[in-house]
Amino acid sequence: MFMSRSEYDRGINTYSPEGRLFQVEYAIEAIKLGSTAIGIQTKEGCVLAVEKRITSPLLEASSIEKIWKVDEHIGCAVSGLIADARTLVDKARVEALSHWFNYNERMSVESVAQAVSNLAIGYGTTLSRPFGVAMLFAGIDHRKPQLWHMDPSGTFIQFDAKAIGSGSEGAQQSLQEVYNKDLTMQEALKHATTILKQVMEEKINSVNIEIATVTPDRMYHLYTPAEVEEVLKTIT
Amino acid sequence: MFMSRSEYDRGINTYSPEGRLFQVEYAIEAIKLGSTAIGIQTKEGCVLAVEKRITSPLLEASSIEKIWKVDEHIGCAVSGLIADARTLVDKARVEALSHWFNYNERMSVESVAQAVSNLAIGYGTTLSRPFGVAMLFAGIDHRKPQLWHMDPSGTFIQFDAKAIGSGSEGAQQSLQEVYNKDLTMQEALKHATTILKQVMEEKINSVNIEIATVTPDRMYHLYTPAEVEEVLKTIT
Amino acid sequence: MFMSRSEYDRGINTYSPEGRLFQVEYAIEAIKLGSTAIGIQTKEGCVLAVEKRITSPLLEASSIEKIWKVDEHIGCAVSGLIADARTLVDKARVEALSHWFNYNERMSVESVAQAVSNLAIGYGTTLSRPFGVAMLFAGIDHRKPQLWHMDPSGTFIQFDAKAIGSGSEGAQQSLQEVYNKDLTMQEALKHATTILKQVMEEKINSVNIEIATVTPDRMYHLYTPAEVEEVLKTIT
Amino acid sequence: MFMSRSEYDRGINTYSPEGRLFQVEYAIEAIKLGSTAIGIQTKEGCVLAVEKRITSPLLEASSIEKIWKVDEHIGCAVSGLIADARTLVDKARVEALSHWFNYNERMSVESVAQAVSNLAIGYGTTLSRPFGVAMLFAGIDHRKPQLWHMDPSGTFIQFDAKAIGSGSEGAQQSLQEVYNKDLTMQEALKHATTILKQVMEEKINSVNIEIATVTPDRMYHLYTPAEVEEVLKTIT
Amino acid sequence: MFMSRSEYDRGINTYSPEGRLFQVEYAIEAIKLGSTAIGIQTKEGCVLAVEKRITSPLLEASSIEKIWKVDEHIGCAVSGLIADARTLVDKARVEALSHWFNYNERMSVESVAQAVSNLAIGYGTTLSRPFGVAMLFAGIDHRKPQLWHMDPSGTFIQFDAKAIGSGSEGAQQSLQEVYNKDLTMQEALKHATTILKQVMEEKINSVNIEIATVTPDRMYHLYTPAEVEEVLKTIT
Amino acid sequence: MFMSRSEYDRGINTYSPEGRLFQVEYAIEAIKLGSTAIGIQTKEGCVLAVEKRITSPLLEASSIEKIWKVDEHIGCAVSGLIADARTLVDKARVEALSHWFNYNERMSVESVAQAVSNLAIGYGTTLSRPFGVAMLFAGIDHRKPQLWHMDPSGTFIQFDAKAIGSGSEGAQQSLQEVYNKDLTMQEALKHATTILKQVMEEKINSVNIEIATVTPDRMYHLYTPAEVEEVLKTIT
Amino acid sequence: MFMSRSEYDRGINTYSPEGRLFQVEYAIEAIKLGSTAIGIQTKEGCVLAVEKRITSPLLEASSIEKIWKVDEHIGCAVSGLIADARTLVDKARVEALSHWFNYNERMSVESVAQAVSNLAIGYGTTLSRPFGVAMLFAGIDHRKPQLWHMDPSGTFIQFDAKAIGSGSEGAQQSLQEVYNKDLTMQEALKHATTILKQVMEEKINSVNIEIATVTPDRMYHLYTPAEVEEVLKTIT
Repeated sequence: MFMSRSEYDRGINTYSPEGRLFQVEYAIEAIKLGSTAIGIQTKEGCVLAVEKRITSPLLEASSIEKIWKVDEHIGCAVSGLIADARTLVDKARVEALSHWFNYNERMSVESVAQAVSNLAIGYGTTLSRPFGVAMLFAGIDHRKPQLWHMDPSGTFIQFDAKAIGSGSEGAQQSLQEVYNKDLTMQEALKHATTILKQVMEEKINSVNIEIATVTPDRMYHLYTPAEVEEVLKTIT
Repeated sequence: MFMSRSEYDRGINTYSPEGRLFQVEYAIEAIKLGSTAIGIQTKEGCVLAVEKRITSPLLEASSIEKIWKVDEHIGCAVSGLIADARTLVDKARVEALSHWFNYNERMSVESVAQAVSNLAIGYGTTLSRPFGVAMLFAGIDHRKPQLWHMDPSGTFIQFDAKAIGSGSEGAQQSLQEVYNKDLTMQEALKHATTILKQVMEEKINSVNIEIATVTPDRMYHLYTPAEVEEVLKTIT
Repeated sequence: MFMSRSEYDRGINTYSPEGRLFQVEYAIEAIKLGSTAIGIQTKEGCVLAVEKRITSPLLEASSIEKIWKVDEHIGCAVSGLIADARTLVDKARVEALSHWFNYNERMSVESVAQAVSNLAIGYGTTLSRPFGVAMLFAGIDHRKPQLWHMDPSGTFIQFDAKAIGSGSEGAQQSLQEVYNKDLTMQEALKHATTILKQVMEEKINSVNIEIATVTPDRMYHLYTPAEVEEVLKTIT
Repeated sequence: MFMSRSEYDRGINTYSPEGRLFQVEYAIEAIKLGSTAIGIQTKEGCVLAVEKRITSPLLEASSIEKIWKVDEHIGCAVSGLIADARTLVDKARVEALSHWFNYNERMSVESVAQAVSNLAIGYGTTLSRPFGVAMLFAGIDHRKPQLWHMDPSGTFIQFDAKAIGSGSEGAQQSLQEVYNKDLTMQEALKHATTILKQVMEEKINSVNIEIATVTPDRMYHLYTPAEVEEVLKTIT
Repeated sequence: MFMSRSEYDRGINTYSPEGRLFQVEYAIEAIKLGSTAIGIQTKEGCVLAVEKRITSPLLEASSIEKIWKVDEHIGCAVSGLIADARTLVDKARVEALSHWFNYNERMSVESVAQAVSNLAIGYGTTLSRPFGVAMLFAGIDHRKPQLWHMDPSGTFIQFDAKAIGSGSEGAQQSLQEVYNKDLTMQEALKHATTILKQVMEEKINSVNIEIATVTPDRMYHLYTPAEVEEVLKTIT
Repeated sequence: MFMSRSEYDRGINTYSPEGRLFQVEYAIEAIKLGSTAIGIQTKEGCVLAVEKRITSPLLEASSIEKIWKVDEHIGCAVSGLIADARTLVDKARVEALSHWFNYNERMSVESVAQAVSNLAIGYGTTLSRPFGVAMLFAGIDHRKPQLWHMDPSGTFIQFDAKAIGSGSEGAQQSLQEVYNKDLTMQEALKHATTILKQVMEEKINSVNIEIATVTPDRMYHLYTPAEVEEVLKTIT
Repeated sequence: MFMSRSEYDRGINTYSPEGRLFQVEYAIEAIKLGSTAIGIQTKEGCVLAVEKRITSPLLEASSIEKIWKVDEHIGCAVSGLIADARTLVDKARVEALSHWFNYNERMSVESVAQAVSNLAIGYGTTLSRPFGVAMLFAGIDHRKPQLWHMDPSGTFIQFDAKAIGSGSEGAQQSLQEVYNKDLTMQEALKHATTILKQVMEEKINSVNIEIATVTPDRMYHLYTPAEVEEVLKTIT
């Protein structure tokens, strides 16, 4: 019943009679309004592919960032409120850098996700509302290439392949169909781009998507428009 | 009457005319939405068995933690909001470690539960809502193997066997039927897994459950998938 | 009129037009939901007898504490929210200990009750709601054996015999009928247990009640299950 | 109109359109729920007589205090919320003691009332609601025996004779009829007790009232039950 | 429309759509509930005359203060909430004393009014509601005898003659009729008392009014009952 | 629609769905309730003319200040809540004085307006509501005679001629008709007074208006009643 | 549905059930009430052209600033609440200056936009509402001439050409039609002015618009009225 729900959702840290935290759930809704992002982990490395919404032909597409470099070995794709994403990515960068200084080793992807989660969980004191952003952390650490997903509730879980944003439902379905543990990076790249193409409303091109990979040799690498163009050719 | 209830539940620290604290009760509801966890104490040691909800085949099951190690001699299974659980488990770990440093002896399971309870009770100042998590502390101390349960109200009580989470009602019923004081660890393991199997919606397997034991010789031990597989074989 | 009442009860420190503080009154209601506790003072000493609600056969009854030792010469039985009780009992213990250190004499029972009352009265700043617990302090000081009762409003008054909790109404009636100033400890024990038996929904046994006495020779003493068993035999 | 009133009374420091502060007025109502207290000043000294509500025959009447000693030369009778009274009496005691230390003279009754009033006025910051208590300060200072009355608004005024609490309306009427400036202490005692007897629902006796006097020779003196008995004999 | 007004008056520092601050206006209403006070400035000095409400014949009229001495050369009559008045008068006294110490000269009446106004304006932080009191400052400074009026909005203006409180409307009308710049002190005294007599519900006498004058020779002087009696004789 | 508007105006810093800040708009309404003030800048200097509302014939008109001297070279006329005006004028004075000390030059009129604007903008922290006052700063600095207007939103703009307060609409219309860049001070004085006369409800005289000029030779000068009288003669 | 929306928009940091932050959206509405501003980046430099609303013929148009100089190489045009704009521009200036001092190089336009965005995002703590202003940063840095747009959500994106304010919809449409990467500064100037002319309600002239350019040789340059006149001549 709508009326009873409206009784609770104003208190950001209040349970409904069913034990739900509506503000967190609404923040998760905020992400469904965001652009789609896809991540895949393979044995050889990780792929991130995201949609960029070019709302105006005069907009400089390169100034819209949806994939950030966290550290040499970790990249991060986001969907939802960009301003919130920036705060969390900053946190991730500081933590990764600080870990490097303190321990002289690369921070694990899981630890980065946890550090960001800690900030997200404490929203009551810092932002007074949950962060409206979902994140895909793709990286390589002492263990292996891996992909972690974090949602506004601060929950972070490792995925073989994960889609977030407005097209996530269809994209996740497609990922399940094509994924297997032995994908090569080339195959992963192709799958990610193909699925992104399917769920995007705009026609895909080298300007309205961003692609990044994390591999043992090149580590984090954001594709140039020319490189994106090359990938797009492979999917006709 | 629903309308009158809605008058009170927004104030997290407000009594209803019947003397109830609705926000605490709603937090208890939050746990009924969580995955099922079962704990059994025997003379030989304790068993923890929890369900993991694998919402996607691409999800890396091992990245979902529902059982944490608190100290060498104590493990903890949780149900409810994972982010809240993490905060409370961190508290438990710090307290146990600090006790070890200060007194050079292992902290009793009850004391650990009390320390976590103190944090949970003071929710008005730290989190501004009750923690939405139930916990089973299983451990061995100078007394004997023992299992303690704590709910969002901060109440902690020792149980011979206790189930929490969405399947807790049926599971608790089954535990009462099978439990006796002289259970061996093998029997306890078998009972815990069998009952978990009964209340889980998904078919049980070595991936969607976690098992841990605390025994005098091995202390806290989280079962590997292979070991879980072995246990599952015993219950057909 | 219910509607008008609902206008006021949200403000924890607000008077109704009739000059009432509803939140304090509701907290008193909270105690009526609690388990029954009975206290009797005699010339020879004090008796405390409390019901323990064993909600599950697998619950370790000894882990439910309803009677706490405050100091060598004072015990305390509670009814209501256990988590709140713990905070207040801790206060009582610290005060009693501190008094011993500072003055090298035992703190009077009244002074202990007053110290706890001071904490309870200041709820506006510490807990932001009244404590939901009633307490019976039973002790012996330089004056004589005495029993003090404190309710959520912080009011503390000495009683010859007092019952609190869900069965308090009937129990208090029975206490008036049987009490006289010359009761022996044996008679007081018997009366307390008999009345508790009458108001308990569950059949009374050595597990679901707790008994404690404070006498000049043994001071505070919590009865073991065997000793409780002995008492129960006397009341058929 | 009731509905419009309900619009304002939640704000403790908010004027109604008529310029009234409802929370203060409601606090004054709280006192009308309290037990009756009567004070009389004569040339020879002051009399305080208060009702004690013995709600249970097992209650230790002497543990209910309605008259407190503030200093050697000042006593104080209260009606309303006892817990609030205690806070204000503590303030009065500290101020009186502090005055003695600093100036080596007894604090005047008016100054004590003013010090308590200052605390009562500042309720916005300390208690977040007006104190729910009325007080009668009876004392002797360099001037003469005198009686001061303070209500929840912090207003303090000197009276020849004043009644507070549930029976105050009838009692004040009676006081006006019997009072004259030349009353002896004996007459004042008799009048106070007689009037208290008239307004009390319970039958008056040496247990359910308290009497205190402040005279130049005995200063503050709280009557023992035997002394009260003597007084009661004089009024048949 | 009443309903729309009720929407705004809860916020103490909120404008209504018409640009009004209702809480300040309601505080001004509070003064209309107060006792009447009259002030007149003449070339020879100032007169203050106030009504005292003797609500009970047993009340010690002299303990009700409506005129306070601020400094040797300034008196202050108030109407409204006495507790608030006391706070503001204290401020005035401290400022006047401090001025004397710092500059070795008497503080001007206007400066005193301004200092009090500054406190009244900052009500948002100190009292969380406007002060419910109007004040008449009567004094003599280097300039000449003068009378200043301050209302709850903190506005202070000099008047030849000014009435405040419940009878202020009629009294102000009468003042306009009788006032001229060349009034002698005797005439001013007579006018003030005559007008006060007209607007008082009770019969005027030496007990239920207070009179004070500030003149170059006697400075601030509060009339004794005998002196008041003398004045009253002059007005039949 | 009125109802929807009432939903927003309680939050002082909340946008309505149309992007409006109602509390600022209501504060601007507050000024329309104020007395009229007129400012004109000419090549030779500035003129300020304001209405004073003499609500009582006994009121000392000279004690109502509507024009303040900010510094030797700047005057300020206000309309709206006088108490707020005082706070802002104090700010202006302190800033102007501080500028003089620090840089040994006169602060520009624009800079003074900006300093006051900064205080006005930060109302959320200091006053918790917008200042309810409009101001006309008239001055001469290194540039030339100039007139600046500031409203409650903190916006400050230079005007050739500007009217504020209840009569501002008609007065502004008249100012547009008569203004030209080459007005002499005499003409400006005459225009300002004539227009003020037209919009005032009371008959204009030397008591109920204030006039001030800022010219290179006399700098800020507040007209004496006699000088005002002279001006009034010129406008018949 | 309007009613349900009104349930959420009062909480500035609260999600609606659809995951929207209404206060940010309403702030964006606030900008649609502002005057129109247009920015164009070319290979040779940037152009800013803004409308100034001359609400009164007596208003000194030059005192309305809609284009500010941030640093030698960056200008900024704004639309919306001017007071908010001032705060953000001050931030931009301080950051740019500080960058120059610290690194002895000019701050990039993007970095300036980011610094301002950081302030805008943290509105919860500083202003308690989102800033009601949109900004166009036009500058030249080590990269090239560039134009950045920032809205109240703190999102900043680079544009070839961008219009903000009440006429932005039509203006943006026109910009798309005329823009190409090879525009000369002269063409850009002409286009910006022509489009501004089309969307302005008032007839365009050298007084009611402001024009600024940032070019490698002249850096930031605000056009004088004469220069504006020259530009206007080119567009008939």
